Amino acid sequence: MSLTQAEQEAARRRAAGVLADAGITLTAAELGAIEVADFGLSRLDETGLQVVVHVNTERVCAKELVLFPRQLCPEHRHPPFGGTPGKEETFRCRTGIVHLYTEGEPSPQPAATPPPDGVFTVWHEIVLRPGDQHTIPPDTLHWFQAGDNGAVVSEFSTESRDDLDVFTDPRIRRATVVADA
Amino acid sequence: MSLTQAEQEAARRRAAGVLADAGITLTAAELGAIEVADFGLSRLDETGLQVVVHVNTERVCAKELVLFPRQLCPEHRHPPFGGTPGKEETFRCRTGIVHLYTEGEPSPQPAATPPPDGVFTVWHEIVLRPGDQHTIPPDTLHWFQAGDNGAVVSEFSTESRDDLDVFTDPRIRRATVVADA
Repeated sequence: MSLTQAEQEAARRRAAGVLADAGITLTAAELGAIEVADFGLSRLDETGLQVVVHVNTERVCAKELVLFPRQLCPEHRHPPFGGTPGKEETFRCRTGIVHLYTEGEPSPQPAATPPPDGVFTVWHEIVLRPGDQHTIPPDTLHWFQAGDNGAVVSEFSTESRDDLDVFTDPRIRRATVVADA
Repeated sequence: MSLTQAEQEAARRRAAGVLADAGITLTAAELGAIEVADFGLSRLDETGLQVVVHVNTERVCAKELVLFPRQLCPEHRHPPFGGTPGKEETFRCRTGIVHLYTEGEPSPQPAATPPPDGVFTVWHEIVLRPGDQHTIPPDTLHWFQAGDNGAVVSEFSTESRDDLDVFTDPRIRRATVVADA
């Protein structure tokens, strides 16, 4: 399961356009390094995320997340590591709408439209519109999906160690494989 | 030495306009809570800063800083506290130009125009344009001034404890006093 280089490049260009429209300027190096994550499912339009990492030190991380219309980041948590309680992250919506799901009382009529073969166990819905934000404590299950017009989300967090993320769906692979064709 | 409520309100409104022009949406609560810092000098147009705090936990802090044209944040450092090495902060320029000065080889022709009665001891210049960023290690002296068109800067950091900031100029007071008239 993989993305082709052409798919990766197309998603990078599209994400760069979305960020430019949101008034977020990137350096040339950042534009070329936009991460396109398909979570190993090869269904990028449905399950995927475009990520710009501004900074990621042992103490602080800041990213911009681009979600295309109805694109979804699958359910996961950030476990403790290296003597820390794990990644604490705040999602701040810049443009569009994001439906964020986390642990807590399930919402009776969630707005998200996850794929029927996905594995989702937390359904407490938080709706983020531009200017809205929510902080996810460490080691807490969460997933999110953009609304019909996509979304840009700024993420402010402690150190990001994507390789340690624990996904609920056993099919998910955080590291995207990019194939030649 | 203080700001009047009218001066504070005018600076808040102006900063809100600058942020809106930069495509940064704030909630009503954030708009009403924009911090206007005059650093105790009552010369806001020259030495001052407008601050929106998005989040500030024991681990992570994110702010937007608005600098009006040629407005300057005076030299200071963030000392160790509570068993931590002190605040680590990354400044990312969103709009305008910022001239940032920190410890290191003094720049021969710095672009900043600090007030003649100010106290500035570090002169290693870093120029930040939109998309550029720089990380200041803990306990490291720094100051910065916007260019002729002002600037918006996103700050990503560890916990912010402004009350602990150590300013080089002994006249500076970090907490702004707002007077009735």
